[in-house]
Amino acid sequence: MAKRQLHLGAILEGVGADHHSWLDPDLPGNASIDINWYIEQARLAEAAKFDLIFIVDSPYITPDTAPHFLNRLEPLTLLSAVAASTSHIGLVGTLTTSYWEPYNVARQFASLDHISRGRAGWNVVTTGLEGAALNYGRDAHFEHGVRYARAREFVEVVQGLWDSYEDDAFPRDRASGTFLDKSKQHRLDHKGTHFSVAGPLALSRSRQGQPVIFQAGDSSEGRALGAAIAEGTFAASQDFESGSAYYADLKARAAALGRNPDHIIVMPGLVPTIAETDEEARAVAEAAQGALSIDKLLTQVGRFFNYHDFSKYELDAPFPDLSGVTLNSYKGGAERVIRIAAEEKLTLRQAAYRFGQWTSPFVGSPETVANEIERWFTGRAADGFNLRVTRPRDFALFREKVVPILQERGLFRSDYADDTLRGHLGLPVPQHRHAQPPVAIAAE
Amino acid sequence: MAKRQLHLGAILEGVGADHHSWLDPDLPGNASIDINWYIEQARLAEAAKFDLIFIVDSPYITPDTAPHFLNRLEPLTLLSAVAASTSHIGLVGTLTTSYWEPYNVARQFASLDHISRGRAGWNVVTTGLEGAALNYGRDAHFEHGVRYARAREFVEVVQGLWDSYEDDAFPRDRASGTFLDKSKQHRLDHKGTHFSVAGPLALSRSRQGQPVIFQAGDSSEGRALGAAIAEGTFAASQDFESGSAYYADLKARAAALGRNPDHIIVMPGLVPTIAETDEEARAVAEAAQGALSIDKLLTQVGRFFNYHDFSKYELDAPFPDLSGVTLNSYKGGAERVIRIAAEEKLTLRQAAYRFGQWTSPFVGSPETVANEIERWFTGRAADGFNLRVTRPRDFALFREKVVPILQERGLFRSDYADDTLRGHLGLPVPQHRHAQPPVAIAAE
Repeated sequence: MAKRQLHLGAILEGVGADHHSWLDPDLPGNASIDINWYIEQARLAEAAKFDLIFIVDSPYITPDTAPHFLNRLEPLTLLSAVAASTSHIGLVGTLTTSYWEPYNVARQFASLDHISRGRAGWNVVTTGLEGAALNYGRDAHFEHGVRYARAREFVEVVQGLWDSYEDDAFPRDRASGTFLDKSKQHRLDHKGTHFSVAGPLALSRSRQGQPVIFQAGDSSEGRALGAAIAEGTFAASQDFESGSAYYADLKARAAALGRNPDHIIVMPGLVPTIAETDEEARAVAEAAQGALSIDKLLTQVGRFFNYHDFSKYELDAPFPDLSGVTLNSYKGGAERVIRIAAEEKLTLRQAAYRFGQWTSPFVGSPETVANEIERWFTGRAADGFNLRVTRPRDFALFREKVVPILQERGLFRSDYADDTLRGHLGLPVPQHRHAQPPVAIAAE
Repeated sequence: MAKRQLHLGAILEGVGADHHSWLDPDLPGNASIDINWYIEQARLAEAAKFDLIFIVDSPYITPDTAPHFLNRLEPLTLLSAVAASTSHIGLVGTLTTSYWEPYNVARQFASLDHISRGRAGWNVVTTGLEGAALNYGRDAHFEHGVRYARAREFVEVVQGLWDSYEDDAFPRDRASGTFLDKSKQHRLDHKGTHFSVAGPLALSRSRQGQPVIFQAGDSSEGRALGAAIAEGTFAASQDFESGSAYYADLKARAAALGRNPDHIIVMPGLVPTIAETDEEARAVAEAAQGALSIDKLLTQVGRFFNYHDFSKYELDAPFPDLSGVTLNSYKGGAERVIRIAAEEKLTLRQAAYRFGQWTSPFVGSPETVANEIERWFTGRAADGFNLRVTRPRDFALFREKVVPILQERGLFRSDYADDTLRGHLGLPVPQHRHAQPPVAIAAE
């Protein structure tokens, strides 16, 4: 087995998933709708040998939504344009299983996988926001459990469609006039609880076989889905302890399902604040936090609770009782807020500062940040990290100062050894379900 | 009013929508799934100052489907990748209103429109093939009339979503902390017969305001839809007479609806066969036709009738009575086959040669082909043409020999005067439905 290697992703979130990042004068105001901004960030990440870039998504906004979400490019079109301007880096896009047709999703990700020559990944989400239903002809969003059942079947259908053609289905033999070997085209004929899809899909497999499946949900249903289908997860872990608990739980769940736990790559989010010294970095982080207005923070906390309006409560009273509020939104996040607020007896103001922004343990000099990354990696709280790169200065310092330390320590690649996303992540090419005879699987 | 100008598009159909084009040794066998092939063709068309490239589509295949349709990139992802590698040419993709959600379609085309800086176009189709229903959880395809009613409402919703933000909705003023002027974000709140969509869409308008709407259906429902919504049509006209009749009918229908007939650009398909002399070109065209096998031609004719199996009929008997066969497929084409077969008393074999391939009046020397183009253009059978470029040799001769003649005659541009698709086509930027006060429209 090859030496375990750290994986790095870059979350390209334009002007930011919060209400203050766009104020950074180094960040172009139109970053979220400018394809050249994305191409430039992807090339920077590729030059630093990152495994992948990652595009978040959700299909619902209000006037109070954070700037990046208000006005942004759509993930599949965005990533296809970036594919044409990069050569190695993986391209992972978020797409909800609640409001798309599996046949269209299978086609678009398979097409991105061809366009990028085997670099596509799909972050499977079920949509946390109730209001999304209204954009898709429904009065109410699917109930939380139904969303996850649908997601599981949806992915099964999509992966089935991705195997519509065996890898040698197209002889394209001009002499005999044989373009397709018809025996190697397969219908799916799926008839399930939520979907009925005949196939075949009009697209062959790519160089990596199939796009890589990612997943991020942290509720118990989310973890169960991740353990079953994910080849990578974008965990929400905000400290080493919760990170290592999540890591152990997810890998154990995957093993219990008969899966190889090494084939599910755990990549928590990482928001770095880097400066020459630890003191300087801490001062920068504290100044950034002090600049946040309490109403923006309350709006952010509200997002876990389907945009619940927290401004109506007393700020310095205990965190309000939300027993009447639906948790059919970002359930994992909402439950965590309620649990910790109760355990630590937080006021609403304290909860707003705690949960209305991303608090990060990755604050310090390049050496300190590299140490913390190594601690998480060797301590099995992470197989890698997904870096939020909204602040241009921190992204530059990370690439130029932190990555070289990780490379010197032999934790992170100095050059690409492969040019597919599966190759970067050490994931096997999935065997074709109709291949005969079975291909021998390399020893692991 | 500016001098009327010819418009040219290039249909990029990879290895071809028929069963024989792929045999051309100049055409790479993997053209339909190789993004570099598309990028190269788009750049060639752009160097020749074409208005647009056009990608066909349909969401259903069988083992007998023609090579290009069997295995091809998906239009939106494909065009986004091409957008990143071109600067001027319009990018038009086909997408069915029968099996997509308007919210997702609006987002992806708007995103392509941003990525390409105002070069996106959507060819609105309703899907002709019955079998498509089985890929989308339905037992039967929508009935022909329902398909067109849905298409009309679908486009109305999408165009409404495209106006979710007024053009000055984002002041992004760091001093005042104002990213969005909330009064300039608009919900759609559409509740119609077929769709219910609240909005707003999370994407502002592009440099050309909105993507350009194309349409191609030739049934009476298709023409009614085209007259109502289309800003360009890809007509199926195969000779000057039917072409000019279609042109007059469509423009009259548009005028009757209060539209400016100059704002609906009629672009029939054009399959050129070009050689040094007319004699040589005719010989090439006849040899190509003689090489076709009768069973492939019957399969192609069957496509108009939902893959009806014509091989069971006597070849030299009169064209069979199809009164029991559904016309809920490519109805316009099927009706045309039945009508002409009856009028001209064709046998099945004659009908197969007539309708199982594209017969083209654009055969001859570059001069002859240019003359025929000018005749259609000045004779009001066409505002331009959409060129099938499956045969590399004919595409090269068209660009290198025919286009210069059209330029010399002042019919076609020698350089781009604009860099949006609306600019190329002489179409106005649609006024924003919420703009106050109304912007003055330039005199035409």
